[in-house]
Amino acid sequence: MPASRSRQDERPRRGRPRVINERSDVRAAATALFAQQGYRATGVRDIADALGIGPTSIYSHIKTKAELLHEIVIETLDALLAMQHDAIASSDDVVEQLRRVAESQLRFLVEHQQESLIAIREFLWAEGDALSAILERRRRYRAAFEDLIAEGVARGRMAVANPKIAAFSIIEMAEGVPRWFRADGDVSINQLAYLYGEFALRIAGVYNVSAPPAK
Amino acid sequence: MPASRSRQDERPRRGRPRVINERSDVRAAATALFAQQGYRATGVRDIADALGIGPTSIYSHIKTKAELLHEIVIETLDALLAMQHDAIASSDDVVEQLRRVAESQLRFLVEHQQESLIAIREFLWAEGDALSAILERRRRYRAAFEDLIAEGVARGRMAVANPKIAAFSIIEMAEGVPRWFRADGDVSINQLAYLYGEFALRIAGVYNVSAPPAK
Repeated sequence: MPASRSRQDERPRRGRPRVINERSDVRAAATALFAQQGYRATGVRDIADALGIGPTSIYSHIKTKAELLHEIVIETLDALLAMQHDAIASSDDVVEQLRRVAESQLRFLVEHQQESLIAIREFLWAEGDALSAILERRRRYRAAFEDLIAEGVARGRMAVANPKIAAFSIIEMAEGVPRWFRADGDVSINQLAYLYGEFALRIAGVYNVSAPPAK
Repeated sequence: MPASRSRQDERPRRGRPRVINERSDVRAAATALFAQQGYRATGVRDIADALGIGPTSIYSHIKTKAELLHEIVIETLDALLAMQHDAIASSDDVVEQLRRVAESQLRFLVEHQQESLIAIREFLWAEGDALSAILERRRRYRAAFEDLIAEGVARGRMAVANPKIAAFSIIEMAEGVPRWFRADGDVSINQLAYLYGEFALRIAGVYNVSAPPAK
């Protein structure tokens, strides 16, 4: 009866406990637990306990715990790939492309800290077709960095002996960040993004792009 | 009766099964399992199973599973710190010091791949005084990188806006390597060490140190 619902009914209902037995609640609880204590160490019962419901209720939303892992990792990697695609499409200058993919990666990892920790550390527990789908996305993600650097070297804009290891390094230095980043820390997301964009160019051998003056 | 032992007795005894119930065997089995499937997901029974002995035999060597984790992580960090100290003491040139700490870190991480994975990923499960001891060592390890970079900036040899984040980045790009490194892969340990040493200097803003020529 949406037509008869008043605006009053659509407001958040303060003071009343929200029903926490939607599939999205199950996924949110699993995301927090997988990120905090790892996929293997998290049981379906832990997810149920976190929501204050019984394990049977969980199984009305999902078939297996693995289904949640697969969904979280694949959607996170798809979001990273879409962002990487946008960054590359935003410029036809290979140096600027590399800066933007590095900056946007860093932003994503700290703005989606839990999902990123799962996609980075827990994906190894994925199985079957889902694991293949995950590995294929990770390969494409790394390859885009490597291709940009190889192109930069070929055009004489970058200088690095091994574009593949340079790509790994650029990705991995950023993948450490969701482990320690705190929104209330003394470095902002923007400052971090600019630093990592700069470090990515330096690793690729782009010199004097925006080096701060020596003290 | 060492005096009466013949050389013959000291040779490896081929064909005879070695007794696998020494404390060092317990630790080796725990190291392999913690690295492979994580500390939380590994039970004392798994360690016993890996050795083909009963859990009771394990408890004749250790009091708790945590004791093994603490020992592995602390000894690994102490070895890393000793190596870092040697690298810094080997030169009074700040640029060369940074290159050597970065190269030696990379070598250590791939030469002690399992211990490194545990020290990097699993240390968070440590408890009590051991956790404090671990966090203090990790802090000292990061601080040595940060101090080198701050000194390099102060001397006008390096140029980077945030020495602390540069230190994190240099450590973290190397910490990813034990996850993917394979001794039979297409990059040798030496090649990797030289690349990471170079990347560390580039991140710190040391330009044109040994940049390979652009193609």
